[in-house]
Amino acid sequence: MENFTFYSPTLFAFGDGQEKKTGALIRRFGGTRALLISGGGSVRKNGAYGDAAASLQAAGVPFAELDGVQPNPRSGKVREGIALARETGADFLLAVGGGSVIDTAKAVGLGILYDGDFWDFFRGAAPVERTVPVGVVLTIAASGSEGSDSAVITNEELGLKWGMPHSDLIRPRFAVLNPRYTCSLPPYQTACGAVDIIAHVLERYFTNTPDVALTDRLCEALVKTVLDAAPRAMENPGDLAARADLMWSGMLAHNNLCGTGRVQDWASHQIEHELSAFTDCAHGAGLAVVMPAWMEYVMTHDVPRFAQFAVRMLGCEMDFAAPERTAREGIARLRRFFASLGMPASLEELGFRADQIPAAAANRAKKPGGFPFGNFVKIGQPEAAAILRLALRRA
Amino acid sequence: MENFTFYSPTLFAFGDGQEKKTGALIRRFGGTRALLISGGGSVRKNGAYGDAAASLQAAGVPFAELDGVQPNPRSGKVREGIALARETGADFLLAVGGGSVIDTAKAVGLGILYDGDFWDFFRGAAPVERTVPVGVVLTIAASGSEGSDSAVITNEELGLKWGMPHSDLIRPRFAVLNPRYTCSLPPYQTACGAVDIIAHVLERYFTNTPDVALTDRLCEALVKTVLDAAPRAMENPGDLAARADLMWSGMLAHNNLCGTGRVQDWASHQIEHELSAFTDCAHGAGLAVVMPAWMEYVMTHDVPRFAQFAVRMLGCEMDFAAPERTAREGIARLRRFFASLGMPASLEELGFRADQIPAAAANRAKKPGGFPFGNFVKIGQPEAAAILRLALRRA
Repeated sequence: MENFTFYSPTLFAFGDGQEKKTGALIRRFGGTRALLISGGGSVRKNGAYGDAAASLQAAGVPFAELDGVQPNPRSGKVREGIALARETGADFLLAVGGGSVIDTAKAVGLGILYDGDFWDFFRGAAPVERTVPVGVVLTIAASGSEGSDSAVITNEELGLKWGMPHSDLIRPRFAVLNPRYTCSLPPYQTACGAVDIIAHVLERYFTNTPDVALTDRLCEALVKTVLDAAPRAMENPGDLAARADLMWSGMLAHNNLCGTGRVQDWASHQIEHELSAFTDCAHGAGLAVVMPAWMEYVMTHDVPRFAQFAVRMLGCEMDFAAPERTAREGIARLRRFFASLGMPASLEELGFRADQIPAAAANRAKKPGGFPFGNFVKIGQPEAAAILRLALRRA
Repeated sequence: MENFTFYSPTLFAFGDGQEKKTGALIRRFGGTRALLISGGGSVRKNGAYGDAAASLQAAGVPFAELDGVQPNPRSGKVREGIALARETGADFLLAVGGGSVIDTAKAVGLGILYDGDFWDFFRGAAPVERTVPVGVVLTIAASGSEGSDSAVITNEELGLKWGMPHSDLIRPRFAVLNPRYTCSLPPYQTACGAVDIIAHVLERYFTNTPDVALTDRLCEALVKTVLDAAPRAMENPGDLAARADLMWSGMLAHNNLCGTGRVQDWASHQIEHELSAFTDCAHGAGLAVVMPAWMEYVMTHDVPRFAQFAVRMLGCEMDFAAPERTAREGIARLRRFFASLGMPASLEELGFRADQIPAAAANRAKKPGGFPFGNFVKIGQPEAAAILRLALRRA
């Protein structure tokens, strides 16, 4: 295990009806005037937006509104939010939605108090020192941004989708997690969320750090839970127990509890980020394609770890004479699981073509320190291209 | 799953060398003048006390000192600490030690700002509204008090050992967790700590709340880790990887992460508290005797859950035709595990006699709402006596 600092000071109010506390929570954490940030119409249909607004009104917290945040959230919307927050004197940002909305709120929070352009934080040109606090009313189990120390924004002018450096300062002050809001999600989004949660765990699981028995077990607990809950939620969208398991797993998968003391990988996420800059695909759908291809590519680097993944997470029986067979079976089962959720199995299905591979790799090179990436196995430009080729067509 | 609030805002600095941050952490969390609280000589021998003092000096944080906190920490020492903190103007309390020291610091923190006697908080006569902040340099993996929202103090005048009502306000602001400090622990204390950690998980595991798949898995992850790490630490006290697993497990077992959304039991702890008021036994040693007896007594209440415990935590093979056999085998294996660590197997070994059973039960009755206790199965006075009788002699 490596040394680490773990600081996750977000208050989580979990369960049906907890959204009534939203206004009081904003007050508790020092907010007097809020900016409500949201996406499209779904939060208005599922009641989350109205519930949040009512709670703020009841608590006497005036608010302005920024809506229209898109999936793969755009820097233009962040700048719009910064201007609106300044104009209205907002001292608290309430994200009502999923990862895109929360990440937008985090970026707005940094930008309000900064003289230059907020993108400076994402390109590593400005240190994160202060922020306007963010609260969350979550409406999809997926990104884990409600408890995480990171944010990902797409700069549409530059054609870049980048995460910012991790900072405990941008963790939300509170998050209201009502699984009932997720019962109206379309199956495709439920599936994308489940893939994202699993990917957040696996990016931490595949490590070269020795002596990580405890966090291995925590990772396995989360993945086994999602493998069980996601099909139940797909089959019966109103299954509140399954929705609750997914929602709390999504937070725990990404507040870094299960990554403490481990050097983490994140190569699949980096590849997916380049992908969605080209295809604008859903993050989870991209990961469902990229991650198994990455696994296949790096598996021989540590067959025992992949065998452990196969046995403990996917329930494979260990072939002690041929661990590599077990390792491969684990990857195959994960593919079958993603397919069973209706996720794509190839880049072609996402509309990404073989002739775009060089451009995707070149795009990555724009990022400071863009290559190599990944820590389990270092991925340079040729390796990234090889993984994309592996992912291109359904096996 | 039940609705819940989870708020664990403690900063954990984990690993060898992290103690150097202690002074800076006190400053970060607003402390300008500290009271260092410690127990006997072990923290001076293992270096923790000297390291903490040096870090405070380096950070320019003046401090007074309160030592001599005993296991099963006493109210007299709490009052001494309150007086000393007031006298020296301490605005931050640094506990250097284990659960007894941390719990003393928590009680002192409440008492400083309260006009009456601090025991009022423990007897439920004063609401927890504010406290002087507490930081921790941990030297034993056991109580989880470094991340928990609770504290247990023995009132020696009244012969009572009571926990106070849970409150997020008394969670430490930070905790330095250097597993190296625990390498010099005697085997008996290492074993007691491991039992305490397992008990903290099991008190949450045995629940009647349905739909707790995720937290079940988290509980199982923690117990499996301790079952593996404790014997390694006993065999080779300097095994830093095993020590690290125990230390981080100890925190996670009791910051309530694995208890979120579950109605928890806590009957074994309540019984043990009465026990140690009579015998002054180590908390872990008492639990090693009481918990298996409690399990045996309540097992038929939910055989499937005990079978799950046996299969998933203790690695028993499921007897599908006779789940009760599997359940019993799980309890038997837990007993054998405790015995393998050198823990006592009966109350007699702890110096507790059959004729003390009525007095122990009567003592419990002094606590407001003392009977019935426990939530998995409600324990009244006769049931408590029956469990103590079961625990009396080695089977």
